[in-house]
Amino acid sequence: MRSEIERYLPRVVARLVEELIKLPGIGPKSASRLAYYLLHAPEEQVRDLAESLLEMKERIVLCSRCFNITEQDPCPICADENRDQSRICVVEQPLDVIALERTDRYRGLYHVLHGALSPVEGIGPEDLHIGELFTRVRLQPVEEIILATNPNLEGDATAMYLSQQLIPLGVRVTRLAHGLPMGGDLEYADEITLSRALEGRREM
Amino acid sequence: MRSEIERYLPRVVARLVEELIKLPGIGPKSASRLAYYLLHAPEEQVRDLAESLLEMKERIVLCSRCFNITEQDPCPICADENRDQSRICVVEQPLDVIALERTDRYRGLYHVLHGALSPVEGIGPEDLHIGELFTRVRLQPVEEIILATNPNLEGDATAMYLSQQLIPLGVRVTRLAHGLPMGGDLEYADEITLSRALEGRREM
Repeated sequence: MRSEIERYLPRVVARLVEELIKLPGIGPKSASRLAYYLLHAPEEQVRDLAESLLEMKERIVLCSRCFNITEQDPCPICADENRDQSRICVVEQPLDVIALERTDRYRGLYHVLHGALSPVEGIGPEDLHIGELFTRVRLQPVEEIILATNPNLEGDATAMYLSQQLIPLGVRVTRLAHGLPMGGDLEYADEITLSRALEGRREM
Repeated sequence: MRSEIERYLPRVVARLVEELIKLPGIGPKSASRLAYYLLHAPEEQVRDLAESLLEMKERIVLCSRCFNITEQDPCPICADENRDQSRICVVEQPLDVIALERTDRYRGLYHVLHGALSPVEGIGPEDLHIGELFTRVRLQPVEEIILATNPNLEGDATAMYLSQQLIPLGVRVTRLAHGLPMGGDLEYADEITLSRALEGRREM
């Protein structure tokens, strides 16, 4: 495909198409379509898109406490003294924080692992922000850890591993109720399903 | 949706999501997914994407003869003296040129209209590069004009309009054979269908 693209497209368009193909869910056809759309789009729109890409990469850091993405460290949730400091909800990705915040039923803190354990993909505890979670629990009194990893194989394995490590530390460990549809992604759950799952969380 | 995005996302991420939503075929969900992918992507990849966007916008011009997109004017096809200067294939978009070049059955020149006539959308002849096509035909001896607009309502209407204007100028006007599936887009046709359509082109 690459040689074909280079043969028929102006070089700078081919370069953009190649960069777009690297993005998830974008194949050669949609990359070409996007490139041609951007070719006809107002100069300002394309400049805004390019600048927002660079700006995001420059400004976004991980919160040094919860590892959520943020522009200031600590992040607004960790810095909010009105939030329940005794509860930590453990999620795989920053998007999961957004899904949970949308329910308006949780007022505790978060911990973002940035992935799940996966022997198949060679992802072990040292590849995730798991050690930092244990440190948090040891340094600061925590009443409850809510495991909100995805309701799939890797998420369940991660929850199992975390509960085995955390329960001996004397902390209450719960898991989101399996009102969540199995095999899916947490971020796709609707607010009501997520709210039910929060309310029905159970001891591990 | 916008206010929700702003509420839960860091501002710079929300800005990128908003820019991505403006792109065709990208909704709020896939825009978030793309933004988070780019957040985790290597800095160099994001920088390359941003630069290729700006570079394309800076470097690409329309060929002053055929109005195809190009980095140098005239474009490589117009500048190629080995191509058959007596034939002009009229297409709606630059992507259509690529689709036709891929067949390897056409060695003439092109003329890119950058759209099709559409009374519904208020697109008339003056909104397309139609006047420039008539000028080309008047200034330079042309044996045949091949109308390769899309096989749909607007493309057919455009072909009809062009043939009515061009035939009185004494030029042979043909249309791609309707081996093309109706209602579709020319750029989605496979090479064989497009080759057949080229071979079976008929007088209008």
